[in-house]
Amino acid sequence: MTPIDQLSKAELAALRASVQANYDAFRAQGLKLDMTRGKPAPDQLDLANAMLSLMGNADYRSEAGEDARNYGNLQGLAEARALIAPILGAPPEQIVVGDNSSLALMHDSLVYALTKGVPGSARPWAKEESVAFICPAPGYDRHFAICEEYGVRMLPVRMTGEGPDMEEVERLAADPAVKGIWAVPKYSNPTGDIYSDATVARLAAMRTGARDFRIFWDDAYCVHHLTAQRNAVANILEECARAGNQDRAFIFASTSKITLAGAGLAFFASSPANVKWYLSSASKRSIGPDKLNQLRHVRFLRDAEGINAHMDAHRALIAPKFAAVIEALDRHLAGTGAANWSVPQGGYFISVEASAGTARRVVELAKAAGVALTPAGATWPYGKDPDDSNLRLAPTFPTLAEVRAASEGIALCILLAALEARTAQAAESAA
Amino acid sequence: MTPIDQLSKAELAALRASVQANYDAFRAQGLKLDMTRGKPAPDQLDLANAMLSLMGNADYRSEAGEDARNYGNLQGLAEARALIAPILGAPPEQIVVGDNSSLALMHDSLVYALTKGVPGSARPWAKEESVAFICPAPGYDRHFAICEEYGVRMLPVRMTGEGPDMEEVERLAADPAVKGIWAVPKYSNPTGDIYSDATVARLAAMRTGARDFRIFWDDAYCVHHLTAQRNAVANILEECARAGNQDRAFIFASTSKITLAGAGLAFFASSPANVKWYLSSASKRSIGPDKLNQLRHVRFLRDAEGINAHMDAHRALIAPKFAAVIEALDRHLAGTGAANWSVPQGGYFISVEASAGTARRVVELAKAAGVALTPAGATWPYGKDPDDSNLRLAPTFPTLAEVRAASEGIALCILLAALEARTAQAAESAA
Repeated sequence: MTPIDQLSKAELAALRASVQANYDAFRAQGLKLDMTRGKPAPDQLDLANAMLSLMGNADYRSEAGEDARNYGNLQGLAEARALIAPILGAPPEQIVVGDNSSLALMHDSLVYALTKGVPGSARPWAKEESVAFICPAPGYDRHFAICEEYGVRMLPVRMTGEGPDMEEVERLAADPAVKGIWAVPKYSNPTGDIYSDATVARLAAMRTGARDFRIFWDDAYCVHHLTAQRNAVANILEECARAGNQDRAFIFASTSKITLAGAGLAFFASSPANVKWYLSSASKRSIGPDKLNQLRHVRFLRDAEGINAHMDAHRALIAPKFAAVIEALDRHLAGTGAANWSVPQGGYFISVEASAGTARRVVELAKAAGVALTPAGATWPYGKDPDDSNLRLAPTFPTLAEVRAASEGIALCILLAALEARTAQAAESAA
Repeated sequence: MTPIDQLSKAELAALRASVQANYDAFRAQGLKLDMTRGKPAPDQLDLANAMLSLMGNADYRSEAGEDARNYGNLQGLAEARALIAPILGAPPEQIVVGDNSSLALMHDSLVYALTKGVPGSARPWAKEESVAFICPAPGYDRHFAICEEYGVRMLPVRMTGEGPDMEEVERLAADPAVKGIWAVPKYSNPTGDIYSDATVARLAAMRTGARDFRIFWDDAYCVHHLTAQRNAVANILEECARAGNQDRAFIFASTSKITLAGAGLAFFASSPANVKWYLSSASKRSIGPDKLNQLRHVRFLRDAEGINAHMDAHRALIAPKFAAVIEALDRHLAGTGAANWSVPQGGYFISVEASAGTARRVVELAKAAGVALTPAGATWPYGKDPDDSNLRLAPTFPTLAEVRAASEGIALCILLAALEARTAQAAESAA
């Protein structure tokens, strides 16, 4: 297809009319579709239905003989820590198992850092004149919401396809007010980036102005592959230790998108000093996690192989949905220059870079046509996308038929918004 | 028995020798008993074993048709809120259901208040020059640990048998730096106080120096009766509203000591403004609670009547343990003046006021004889019991036989410590 910006005025008008007609026809169907949130679909949750009657009446003893029904064991059952250890790349003794969800563990870690400081802090972060976090963007809106809630200044850095722009990260990290960085190392939300070995090594080794700098390493999609390729990311704890920064990384993960979204386990993994710090703070908050749910997970998933097999079943259900989105974007937009999009190898999102200045309009057009999209700007700190171009598509929750229908509409909206913008631009330059 | 302080020197020496011999004989048994924590015993947890295979594979829909396996519904399922509403004395729409446990909800509420303020705050509490809480004492060590962790100054006020000394509470609350009070209104930990109507009315109506004063109303033992009498406490939300202080009370409770100690539901109930505030803060931390565990509770407990019936079964198991402690204390100590103790009508503890200056010695003697007691001072802010007299006995977890044996030893230790102290005193006044 000819790029939009190379069309003649007549060609532009003709294409716009035809796309408008297609859009109007789509809109006339009166659909009601939702592609806003990265939620598992019911058939994915069905995969874990056997958990709903686990463990059975008499099965509440841990391997160590603890009564999992009672209080205690803040760090979590040894077998639950062993289950996740190979996936997190941390020894079981450096893992804490919490209740749902990892978002809570990230929130609490930041709150403890603000109110108490972390190992190596001269004072609580909240006592500093200013605290800032590097925020690779587009990124996860809930990370940004935590920062905004507690007044942590957010410094966006663009993603490159293999993690954030490390030149820029290193430049910003030199400022002592910069206390941390958010990172989703595998299948980043929403861009699908897989952090390269070089990215991980640089994050682990870079000079930071703050002695108590922390990487909030949100390994949300550690086993959430969309292809047969189980991509690996370098071990951040080992890289940090090798670089002499053993306390730099906090790893977070959960089973929310492995077993049951509302009833998963969450994990914190880090250096011995950080784990001790976390447990000391958490001990004021809790006498212990829900260890029955930990046993339920151990009985159901069994081991890393069991997790992989379970994730293969997820993949079989959701990969076709991602393929349907990509197919529609390809068919309507390839060669038009109206947008670029990620073709993720895992995770829960497709990231679309629409024509600059059109993301809000796309969301508006989609809404009018019955397709709910994540608000434009949501993937940027403070909801401010500097180019008004990023769209986050979340195809897992709707049915495949709904994803197909929605993708058709979304592609039309992206194209129509680009044509509208180009028309306005052409009129302006003619004026 | 003759009071110790009325014994002649010879009588004192004779009694001490005989008690010492009894203690030595007890110690020689080499027992290993633990009366430290208010944990349910395995047979209490067995009462809820049917929950371990709930809900069954296909039963994950809420009454409103929500998929309880998925994300969402931060406030909790309507049926879980309805289940607890009559017990908390709050309408379901003013209740939030969280995961285990209420300690976490109390912790978070204080953290949110410190970092963000509460409705009516001029600024976050942490931005005040100083923040203090009134701490009825003896009280719950974990309440005090939260305050200590976050630098909230603790002001102890003595319990009277019907709640804290309200004269003193009112005097302290007049200070604008005093932002709150801890309260365990029914079967207080550890004294067993049941707050009188007058206490509740005064707490609700008193003038406070801080406009944003909060009562942290920990209704931990709301249905945890030890007699057939289901004692009631006045409705704090209604009393506060009547006094024009509708936002004054945060109610907390949980099912940790109703169903499963490590896998209970926790509840927050308050005014509409406070609930909105709580949910707004909590929404940064969580996408929603474990709603499967909420359904599990609803299916198992069914309604308030179901809860009462279940608590009757608990009572049948633990009331004899409390009776055994009281019997031993009576038999060894009645009339000696060596101690006073609570005869609680509910809750998890017996509070003993040993002779002034002997609590540490009692714990030491007990430890040497194989009986672990809660450290002396634990029931006071900063671990500082001004009289070194309070002992908290927790008889629920050991078996009845163990409680009998331990009580025998504890009574001997209390008596022996009193006799030692009296002997030293007599020697001093003779010198």
